[in-house]
Amino acid sequence: MTAGRFRGKRCVVTGGLGFIGSNLVHTLHRAGADVTVIDALVPTHGGDVRNVAGLDDVEVIVAGIDDVDRVGDAIVGARYVFNLAGQVSHLASMHDPVADLDLNARSHLVFLELLRSRNPTATVVHTSTRQVYGRPRYLPVDEEHPTQPVDVNGIAKLAGEQAHLLYARVHGMPITSLRLTNVYGPRQSLQRDGLGFLPVFVRRAMNGEQIDLFGDGQQLRDCLYVDDVIEGLLLAATTPTAAGEVFNLGHPEAVTLLDVATTLIKVTGQGSLRLVPWPEDHERIDIGSFHGDFAKARHKLGWHPTVDLAAGARRTVAFYREHEWYLSST
Amino acid sequence: MTAGRFRGKRCVVTGGLGFIGSNLVHTLHRAGADVTVIDALVPTHGGDVRNVAGLDDVEVIVAGIDDVDRVGDAIVGARYVFNLAGQVSHLASMHDPVADLDLNARSHLVFLELLRSRNPTATVVHTSTRQVYGRPRYLPVDEEHPTQPVDVNGIAKLAGEQAHLLYARVHGMPITSLRLTNVYGPRQSLQRDGLGFLPVFVRRAMNGEQIDLFGDGQQLRDCLYVDDVIEGLLLAATTPTAAGEVFNLGHPEAVTLLDVATTLIKVTGQGSLRLVPWPEDHERIDIGSFHGDFAKARHKLGWHPTVDLAAGARRTVAFYREHEWYLSST
Repeated sequence: MTAGRFRGKRCVVTGGLGFIGSNLVHTLHRAGADVTVIDALVPTHGGDVRNVAGLDDVEVIVAGIDDVDRVGDAIVGARYVFNLAGQVSHLASMHDPVADLDLNARSHLVFLELLRSRNPTATVVHTSTRQVYGRPRYLPVDEEHPTQPVDVNGIAKLAGEQAHLLYARVHGMPITSLRLTNVYGPRQSLQRDGLGFLPVFVRRAMNGEQIDLFGDGQQLRDCLYVDDVIEGLLLAATTPTAAGEVFNLGHPEAVTLLDVATTLIKVTGQGSLRLVPWPEDHERIDIGSFHGDFAKARHKLGWHPTVDLAAGARRTVAFYREHEWYLSST
Repeated sequence: MTAGRFRGKRCVVTGGLGFIGSNLVHTLHRAGADVTVIDALVPTHGGDVRNVAGLDDVEVIVAGIDDVDRVGDAIVGARYVFNLAGQVSHLASMHDPVADLDLNARSHLVFLELLRSRNPTATVVHTSTRQVYGRPRYLPVDEEHPTQPVDVNGIAKLAGEQAHLLYARVHGMPITSLRLTNVYGPRQSLQRDGLGFLPVFVRRAMNGEQIDLFGDGQQLRDCLYVDDVIEGLLLAATTPTAAGEVFNLGHPEAVTLLDVATTLIKVTGQGSLRLVPWPEDHERIDIGSFHGDFAKARHKLGWHPTVDLAAGARRTVAFYREHEWYLSST
């Protein structure tokens, strides 16, 4: 479908060894695109060269997006740039706030300046996060909701997102940013904590372990299967009117964390769950319930999610059963 | 009045050699406070040791606020920290976006981490800017107005402001941020461009030169005389319920840039004005008219501006006539 439009096109995917990035690389590669990956392989981030194993004609550059020399050459001639590089851990951002700002904002300013000087006409799609909203004041949260992040990760991601939109408006570059909600599916780093609750839940269920839910487990989330996110990225890249705009990618199905855990236990036939009190460091930066309104993406991009939690959980578990190293190594 | 509460109190003023900072230092010094200045004296910023000439018992540390060793020692034992360091030029932020992010956000994260480890109970007042709002969607602009900056300076200042409020909420530190509108008065660097339109207008009028107004000169601004800003800083520092909050400081008198130029020409008895087309680099990041709603500061801080444009312009011009070096050197 949408992927077919990328046949023969030069695409750069930053963060392309990570979870969403590597799934995008697989999709673009299958569609016949000419793909270059830029990934810093920051040890705590979840990127892994094994995520693109077998894709021999994909060029992989191990570098930060602010590595002016190596990145500058790589982006020249690219038709599409998917800028997915970044750090996602909310807790890590509180332990090392400066590192988070560097990875999610500062390096992106360097990258945008590079694009502006070396390839200002490339279509760029950046991934932002629902974390920029902070604690929702109303549900579902649309793009007009105030942005008041509750952790440094949200602050830095917001600055990075605003920089992308600014370069679109001020410099006329075709850049779009997508605010992603919680994403799950194949090729997610399951062994590292700090990458969101979903990989932890998947790992624990598949290992027959106990899943800890904080509080009463009734916080709402709209979980996106990664294939739906990939389709959103491709649609944003091929919709000219998306330039300069930010879009929520969310799911109509708002589920509780208890639902998510229960679904994974059911699909795997393993694991258990318990309710535990909130750890203080988590509670301080918790956003409560979240449910995103994606009407703008539906109308402007023609995007809507196609995989519900039950189906997505089955596909996710099936993938990891066939790719056991995700569960057995770090 | 409010300044009296600072007698004998240890106060740190970052950016204390700059325009607003040095006026604050004079006020605190007069009130009998024990004042330490931290200022990086970045050449393009407007700071100048002559701004605090004669205040011999004020300690001046020439260092960036991210200079961990020198700043760490200076903040220990401070009762109040006025964090005014930063870069204000909108155009400069577009020419060197990374430098702006470093000066307005990254170094502040380092500084906040230092405060958290070395002096978490100090009361901190940070200066933000109305630039965080971007182009107003309605006037007057209150604190609930969406924050969508139109230049990198606004993005970086917003990230810095959000970091301050985050440390208040998450770490329980007594930190307040004030969003300032355009400020004028004594001790402003008049010779450097890029520090806002007001010092340029003052300089041109006082030198009998021509003031260029972009477009039709009908853009609205609410200009604050610096003494009113100082009172806002002191009130924020001495209002415990201000912790974790952000406040607009604005002026009820919304005037056109044409009004401002005309007032200065009248007060100085010199200068002239002309309307010129918008330079492209300015127009791309222009916000149109701005008028801030300061009801929150009025109610919670008991603050309101006391100096109107005509009186402020007279006091400003009188000061520079007595301190001619501001007009004759850079």
